[in-house]
Amino acid sequence: MTARLLNIAVIGAGRIGKLHAENLATRINSSQLAAVADIKLPAAQEIARRFNVPLATDDYRSLLGHSAIDAVAICSASNTHAEIILEAAAAGKHIFCEKPIDYDLRRIHRCLEAVAKAGVKLQVGFNRRFDPNFAKVRELVATGKIGQPHIVRITSRDPAPPPLEYVKVSGGLFFDMTIHDFDMVRFLSGSEAEEILALGDALVDPQVAGAGDVDTAIITMRLKSGALATIDNSRKAVYGYDQRVEVFGSNGMATVSNRTPDTHILANSDGVHTARPQQFFFDRYHESYIAELQAFVDCVLRDLPPPVSGQDGLAPVLMGLAAAKSLKERRLVTLREIISE
Amino acid sequence: MTARLLNIAVIGAGRIGKLHAENLATRINSSQLAAVADIKLPAAQEIARRFNVPLATDDYRSLLGHSAIDAVAICSASNTHAEIILEAAAAGKHIFCEKPIDYDLRRIHRCLEAVAKAGVKLQVGFNRRFDPNFAKVRELVATGKIGQPHIVRITSRDPAPPPLEYVKVSGGLFFDMTIHDFDMVRFLSGSEAEEILALGDALVDPQVAGAGDVDTAIITMRLKSGALATIDNSRKAVYGYDQRVEVFGSNGMATVSNRTPDTHILANSDGVHTARPQQFFFDRYHESYIAELQAFVDCVLRDLPPPVSGQDGLAPVLMGLAAAKSLKERRLVTLREIISE
Amino acid sequence: MTARLLNIAVIGAGRIGKLHAENLATRINSSQLAAVADIKLPAAQEIARRFNVPLATDDYRSLLGHSAIDAVAICSASNTHAEIILEAAAAGKHIFCEKPIDYDLRRIHRCLEAVAKAGVKLQVGFNRRFDPNFAKVRELVATGKIGQPHIVRITSRDPAPPPLEYVKVSGGLFFDMTIHDFDMVRFLSGSEAEEILALGDALVDPQVAGAGDVDTAIITMRLKSGALATIDNSRKAVYGYDQRVEVFGSNGMATVSNRTPDTHILANSDGVHTARPQQFFFDRYHESYIAELQAFVDCVLRDLPPPVSGQDGLAPVLMGLAAAKSLKERRLVTLREIISE
Amino acid sequence: MTARLLNIAVIGAGRIGKLHAENLATRINSSQLAAVADIKLPAAQEIARRFNVPLATDDYRSLLGHSAIDAVAICSASNTHAEIILEAAAAGKHIFCEKPIDYDLRRIHRCLEAVAKAGVKLQVGFNRRFDPNFAKVRELVATGKIGQPHIVRITSRDPAPPPLEYVKVSGGLFFDMTIHDFDMVRFLSGSEAEEILALGDALVDPQVAGAGDVDTAIITMRLKSGALATIDNSRKAVYGYDQRVEVFGSNGMATVSNRTPDTHILANSDGVHTARPQQFFFDRYHESYIAELQAFVDCVLRDLPPPVSGQDGLAPVLMGLAAAKSLKERRLVTLREIISE
Repeated sequence: MTARLLNIAVIGAGRIGKLHAENLATRINSSQLAAVADIKLPAAQEIARRFNVPLATDDYRSLLGHSAIDAVAICSASNTHAEIILEAAAAGKHIFCEKPIDYDLRRIHRCLEAVAKAGVKLQVGFNRRFDPNFAKVRELVATGKIGQPHIVRITSRDPAPPPLEYVKVSGGLFFDMTIHDFDMVRFLSGSEAEEILALGDALVDPQVAGAGDVDTAIITMRLKSGALATIDNSRKAVYGYDQRVEVFGSNGMATVSNRTPDTHILANSDGVHTARPQQFFFDRYHESYIAELQAFVDCVLRDLPPPVSGQDGLAPVLMGLAAAKSLKERRLVTLREIISE
Repeated sequence: MTARLLNIAVIGAGRIGKLHAENLATRINSSQLAAVADIKLPAAQEIARRFNVPLATDDYRSLLGHSAIDAVAICSASNTHAEIILEAAAAGKHIFCEKPIDYDLRRIHRCLEAVAKAGVKLQVGFNRRFDPNFAKVRELVATGKIGQPHIVRITSRDPAPPPLEYVKVSGGLFFDMTIHDFDMVRFLSGSEAEEILALGDALVDPQVAGAGDVDTAIITMRLKSGALATIDNSRKAVYGYDQRVEVFGSNGMATVSNRTPDTHILANSDGVHTARPQQFFFDRYHESYIAELQAFVDCVLRDLPPPVSGQDGLAPVLMGLAAAKSLKERRLVTLREIISE
Repeated sequence: MTARLLNIAVIGAGRIGKLHAENLATRINSSQLAAVADIKLPAAQEIARRFNVPLATDDYRSLLGHSAIDAVAICSASNTHAEIILEAAAAGKHIFCEKPIDYDLRRIHRCLEAVAKAGVKLQVGFNRRFDPNFAKVRELVATGKIGQPHIVRITSRDPAPPPLEYVKVSGGLFFDMTIHDFDMVRFLSGSEAEEILALGDALVDPQVAGAGDVDTAIITMRLKSGALATIDNSRKAVYGYDQRVEVFGSNGMATVSNRTPDTHILANSDGVHTARPQQFFFDRYHESYIAELQAFVDCVLRDLPPPVSGQDGLAPVLMGLAAAKSLKERRLVTLREIISE
Repeated sequence: MTARLLNIAVIGAGRIGKLHAENLATRINSSQLAAVADIKLPAAQEIARRFNVPLATDDYRSLLGHSAIDAVAICSASNTHAEIILEAAAAGKHIFCEKPIDYDLRRIHRCLEAVAKAGVKLQVGFNRRFDPNFAKVRELVATGKIGQPHIVRITSRDPAPPPLEYVKVSGGLFFDMTIHDFDMVRFLSGSEAEEILALGDALVDPQVAGAGDVDTAIITMRLKSGALATIDNSRKAVYGYDQRVEVFGSNGMATVSNRTPDTHILANSDGVHTARPQQFFFDRYHESYIAELQAFVDCVLRDLPPPVSGQDGLAPVLMGLAAAKSLKERRLVTLREIISE
């Protein structure tokens, strides 16, 4: 499969589909944006026109039959992911799938089995692993620069809450937001959660409680390695998108600060002032979206294991289920409980 | 009581007693170091000689009878605090007492009652409240600069573990170390803990487990105000004394970075390098030890309530008991349980 | 000229030509990369192939006759700029020209006259004005946030010296490197140099002195506004590309720090370590190259004055001539002397 | 001279005399504040009372006869320094003298000769050498951490201009303010100035020009080692006392940031805000005043050369004279000219 381009079809032409399509069309090496599908045909056509893509359709299944298409990037609504994975695997297409695979454990397992059986690659879209800042922290941990990890500390706060309508269908804070942080705990520590406690409340907007969710939370956990981890989340940081991680170990500590749109410093009689953190995930994680798709293309072309596997898609869902149970039952919940349910 | 000096006797001439004696002798206004007591007379005499103090004794009780002595600073072993408080109160002396008052709730209550009955001032030595950095964060919170507090996040890591012998008698991590962080949660948030979960382990030194303690911990709690808090502790941060706090609220976030011995930056082909945090609490909290005693002197001379009250001495002990119980029973523990025990 | 694409031909397919071609092909709105010319045809063809450009040639003059081409981006060798500007202006093409227009004052003036007469736009490639960091400092100055500027301070140090062969033909440090800083002084202060003193030496590589140049310099100047400015340059900063500016004024100070590839912080027993500044101008000024071309496209399409004018191309050359004379004659040189020579 | 205390008399009970007296009385080891002299007796008496000093006088000459007094700290008006040095040397007293020795070269030389002849120690009060931040930069340079120094860059800006009356008698900006920076260039680089250019103006307050002085200046110089240096000064930085140094060399760069009263960071919807630099030299250089006097005491008691010699007192005056001449004659002035005048 050397020296040729990987032909990828993007399925789903919403916000994230557009982003991946643009990156595939202009920034990813050794690949080609071969088709775009969306249930709303004009959305698919708009992207196709903009990036000179030969094929736009409202029927993704029609793409799965094309022999010229090597892989799909699933960017459709979350509740369609599992089904498309099953179909794409059956059609022998490699799969890049936005998180989550699904929120139902059985369906996830069915997907993982289908993928394994078909012998195709599946990479899950935990893009933050490819953020240069977090990747550097992981590198420092993995190369032993901080010794044995003892404490993982993550602050992850959104600049503004999503619409209440979204909260009602998103699966809640732990599944639409913390899931990235759950992945980050695993990525940074190289270990798995063993038990979890979640405390949370609707402090930003009381209506969120009515929707059965929380908007502020602290999730604490013990990992199999013995390390401890704590995540704090808020739906609304008025100063911008606050995304920091820290790993503390026996020989040191690795952390990151937020990125800012510029590095200016203004000193005046009121104090010393700098820019707010980058405001939104498109800016903050711009490079990571490019890097994760490039990694997917590379792993397919070189027949390597995907850097974010199906198992990596499953584990944070288990953690989310444990956190949700802990929040509800006000107790420490083990991952074992969740798995054996 | 205007325009005169407050005569203070220091009881206990160990490390912290020496520090307070030196500050009283050279840096605190409107006060005078009137006497030093220690069960080891030479220790008391050495301080007396160095700072020109008229009276050194191995019997603190003899000082309580002196009419010229207005107040005592109790710096003796923790298990003697309660008794000395009771005696000093009975003798009508104002009391500055190093933390803790005691670890036994009944004895603490007896002390608070005695002090109330005697009408003397009691200030507990939670010096970190007087650290200019933490005090500034509190000021920002108290003046509404971050809106309603939602999340309190404290990192508190010692540069090196104490001797194992000390661990065995100190009451454990929660009582000799986290107790300052418990106080900080209350100080910064202006609220009280409602329920607490503690996870911990002996990751730095397995022998600590044998001594029935942990050396690494994450303590998570819900406050009465609705805010959430998380503390992470380690006995050993190889890069120095790591003391950071952060309060996140509806309108912003206030935090501090560690202080360093100097502000140098060295850039070379390996990277950009700065100094480690100040290594020890004497350096890190130097200013706070002066400020807390000055505040004590001022509150006595002006007949004002002490800035760190007996109640402030009690509350963190309750939190420590809850944390210890949580660690042992692996569950969320309410403060109510502890109080009604 | 609304709602259509600006067709631009890139002339010169070297390092900077490739960069502009790529940006035009993938990142600049409302424009189209219409042709590429290079005296080495394969270089032009390679770019054309990569970005699907219809026309590649080794004769730029052939492009100037094409009615479909609206503008040229001159990226050829410095000593060809003036001639191409004259020809392009005569052909009625708008011109984006890499700095410098020329190093000969008479030739520069001839170009400016030709452009004025032809009524085409000319924008000079001082890309650093479009760096978000420096642009923010300029914005703070221009909006009065620091009051009246008093001191401009620029540090501009390259990561590694160019080959000695390049130094011999480049016009020297003041013309190939400091010229950007001269532009920055004007841009940030909004004022013109009045007198200049340059001190310099070959401290990095003594051979540079043999080539009649210096590799380390401090240039100090008085501006017409009364403000003072100082630039320090080095050809070799082992820690990376060091690019900092500062404007100090009656009501405050605005400055920037270097950008780093990531924001990691590693604390260990040796100290606290962060990443080196970005190593090269492609990374450091990536965004600025896109923004300057976008600004050129926009000013042509909307018939606005170019944000970096021909006059802006002339002034730093005058400053470079004054600095060179000052260095040679070891005295303060006025700009008036240079202009009237 | 081992194991005894050095008895020091402070001459001059103004702002700086009070500071040294307090440090001697409470913070300097192995010394004793033995006497205080001031032409205003009550000023001397006030200090004596406060620190329990046995002797206060309005006639410093009476102290020079006391055999119990080992050393004097000259803190009187600048124009009296030389005379007191001559008398103290004649009386065999060791001398700590606030900068400057004098502004007249002949008088300085006479002092240095008198001190040498008398065999007493003379230390000049360039306290900033003892600032932990600048001392660390010097240490990094001296131990080769940045290789061969190429560029020294100093920013030194006062928070507010002195009264115009002071400016008229102080000798001007270069002698009352820049003189510290001249010393810093020598201290950091380990080299001597060879030629100097000064540009300056009265930008803060036009009345300063009427007083024959400037309040904003950039001073550029070439050092004997070949390194270049630039100093920028302002009498008024509205954001506080701005004191930064940087040494750039063949293998790296060492710099410092300003110290702040606390390390708080406030992030809100307007941006990220930190404290202003410490506002005044008493705060900023607090530690350095203690360290320089301790160093003086130690060098006398151990019979070592003073860390800031008489020669170190002379050299910055030469630099100031060169700068003043350069400013007046608008040209590069060599130190050789000044010396041979």
